[in-house]
Amino acid sequence: MSALDLAQHPHRRFNPLTGEWLLVSPHRSQRPWQGQQEAPDRSQRPAYDPTCYLCAGNTRANGAVNPAYTGTFAFDNDFAALTPDAPAGTVEMGGLLRAEAESGVGRVICFSPRHDLTLPEMSTPDIRRVVDVWAEEFASLGARPDINYVQIFENKGAVMGCSNPHPHGQVWAQRTVPGDPAKETVQQQAYFQQHGRSLLADYLELELNEQVRIVLENEHFVVLVPFWAAWPFETLVLPRRVVQDVTQLTDAERDRFADVIRRLTIRYDNLFQTSFPYSAGLHQRPTDGQQHPEWHLHMHFFPPLLRSATVRKFMVGYELLANPQRDITPEYAAQRLRELPEVHYKQTTA
Amino acid sequence: MSALDLAQHPHRRFNPLTGEWLLVSPHRSQRPWQGQQEAPDRSQRPAYDPTCYLCAGNTRANGAVNPAYTGTFAFDNDFAALTPDAPAGTVEMGGLLRAEAESGVGRVICFSPRHDLTLPEMSTPDIRRVVDVWAEEFASLGARPDINYVQIFENKGAVMGCSNPHPHGQVWAQRTVPGDPAKETVQQQAYFQQHGRSLLADYLELELNEQVRIVLENEHFVVLVPFWAAWPFETLVLPRRVVQDVTQLTDAERDRFADVIRRLTIRYDNLFQTSFPYSAGLHQRPTDGQQHPEWHLHMHFFPPLLRSATVRKFMVGYELLANPQRDITPEYAAQRLRELPEVHYKQTTA
Ligand SMILES: O=P(O)(O)O[C@H]1O[C@H](CO)[C@@H](O)[C@H](O)[C@H]1O
Ligand SMILES: O=P(O)(O)O[C@H]1O[C@H](CO)[C@@H](O)[C@H](O)[C@H]1O
Repeated sequence: MSALDLAQHPHRRFNPLTGEWLLVSPHRSQRPWQGQQEAPDRSQRPAYDPTCYLCAGNTRANGAVNPAYTGTFAFDNDFAALTPDAPAGTVEMGGLLRAEAESGVGRVICFSPRHDLTLPEMSTPDIRRVVDVWAEEFASLGARPDINYVQIFENKGAVMGCSNPHPHGQVWAQRTVPGDPAKETVQQQAYFQQHGRSLLADYLELELNEQVRIVLENEHFVVLVPFWAAWPFETLVLPRRVVQDVTQLTDAERDRFADVIRRLTIRYDNLFQTSFPYSAGLHQRPTDGQQHPEWHLHMHFFPPLLRSATVRKFMVGYELLANPQRDITPEYAAQRLRELPEVHYKQTTA
Repeated sequence: MSALDLAQHPHRRFNPLTGEWLLVSPHRSQRPWQGQQEAPDRSQRPAYDPTCYLCAGNTRANGAVNPAYTGTFAFDNDFAALTPDAPAGTVEMGGLLRAEAESGVGRVICFSPRHDLTLPEMSTPDIRRVVDVWAEEFASLGARPDINYVQIFENKGAVMGCSNPHPHGQVWAQRTVPGDPAKETVQQQAYFQQHGRSLLADYLELELNEQVRIVLENEHFVVLVPFWAAWPFETLVLPRRVVQDVTQLTDAERDRFADVIRRLTIRYDNLFQTSFPYSAGLHQRPTDGQQHPEWHLHMHFFPPLLRSATVRKFMVGYELLANPQRDITPEYAAQRLRELPEVHYKQTTA
């Protein structure tokens, strides 16, 4: 038997989705913190803010006027990082300076007309409408011959670079497949070729046997802290059925997807009794016209908070130069999340 | 001729050191910013702080007492992420849960007894002493059979997770080669095998011809904004002579290394007239007992500030899920840095 105890001893864990390693230092979680304190989001926002460029009926920075939408609202990003009409071309020098044109589309998705809500404060049917918009955006963008990958994501909270608290996400869709989904394609393909099965389906089976990293589940979805999680309370949202993208989810599955998103984000808010910041997003098959039987749709949540509403994990020196590092174990994080109620703290303390 | 203009059109650039791509969106740099404002470091610190656990003569959290050091001071980190005595062992389940023990050493390097200084405010001879400590640490840690990689770095500023403003850096040395230096080894090896030359030496030659990304130089070192820089004002510090690690630098080279570090960090502070935060670190050959003729010592600076002392770049949703992205071009960043004086603003405005 190995003397290695993952709950106590420093070790590395392998991320089979990216093929990369992570350093885990469980013994270090007692380290005192004298560094930067984050400002927790305690703002009381109005249901409608006349100065918000995402509220219904308001005029945006470029003069466009938002419709009087009542559910979700998707539109082209006024300051998109990608544009469809970018000139083609490449630059090459000595094999060491290499650039190539990139084209694409940036979209903004308002989750609700209510300026004062966030996903955990929305109803399951309202979140289900967001899932439907994700499917619509993926279908229409993915069908374009000039789009080979569609990245749907949300930055929540000022600490995650979100510049407007109105509940919204983004879509960046582009000609090439970016680094992370490209790595996940390689890894899932290798596993599929070797085993004839989905990497994440087999992984899910292991986790359902182990139970220690499961946070919550329903009929069609499971939320867990992956064995290789880098961020303190990182989670992975997995459909039980292997589907390549969100358009393939049935009506019942979409409802259950909304259900786990709601329950997970409520637990997140309850953890430190604050609007829990994160970046989250879907990883799906490339829309490159190839079959991708190896691909298993999933959603990553990358939240930075570590010990409280004000103390975050920094991915800095060692992490930027060597590899990601974490202190609390994924098992401990899952246990903390599991112990929390699924009623939002604002509703119990109101 | 290509219609692609790298100063204007969205494109991807290739990082030959890691083999990964970066998205560049130059047209987006005019985007208004309504998000989080950073708190610039305007603190007036005393030369000695009785509560600082790094000042000379003070008692640390674990009861150890710092010597009355007058130059640099290196010691074992009291809260090291890596420990030498960690039990060995591996965990494996279905090829999908994989962990292995990791051991190593964490060190802290105080750059100066002066609590109120930072590298750009230190003299070149005093920075040279820091270079010497880097060489001593690399030599002694790298000689150990249980250490195959030595990561030397500095987190500067609260925004980069630094919890004590006393000028200091760290060393994390470990049994395995972490992800980023492992990638750089693969890339440099492939280039060396193909061309019989150092990737970074050839790259440096290209950049010296081009000039547009050069920030400053002296007899033995060049500082440039790499063609593939991800952070807004990221730089690469390169010795002209190919050496694998800092111990191989001659006396004159070490002086000139200190000179470029001083001049670069002064320019950084002058850019937004603030103590410029960054994570920086050396990348050197693995200490795995192999020959590494392909390795070319270099130092990366990863600074987050984008537009002012209070507006930073966030590596969040798209960046965490897809790949790194930048708005201002590396060429523009280099030009900005080039235009700045090499006298520290505190000395001219005092
Ligand atoms: O070791 P420190 O300075 O306490 O901690 C800082 O640097 C470490 C190495 O980059 C990071 O893991 C921590 O998140 C950061 O806060
Ligand atoms: O597009 P936004 O919300 O203005 O900007 C935010 O998300 C983008 C995509 O992750 C990042 O590139 C920006 O750094 C961040 O501030």
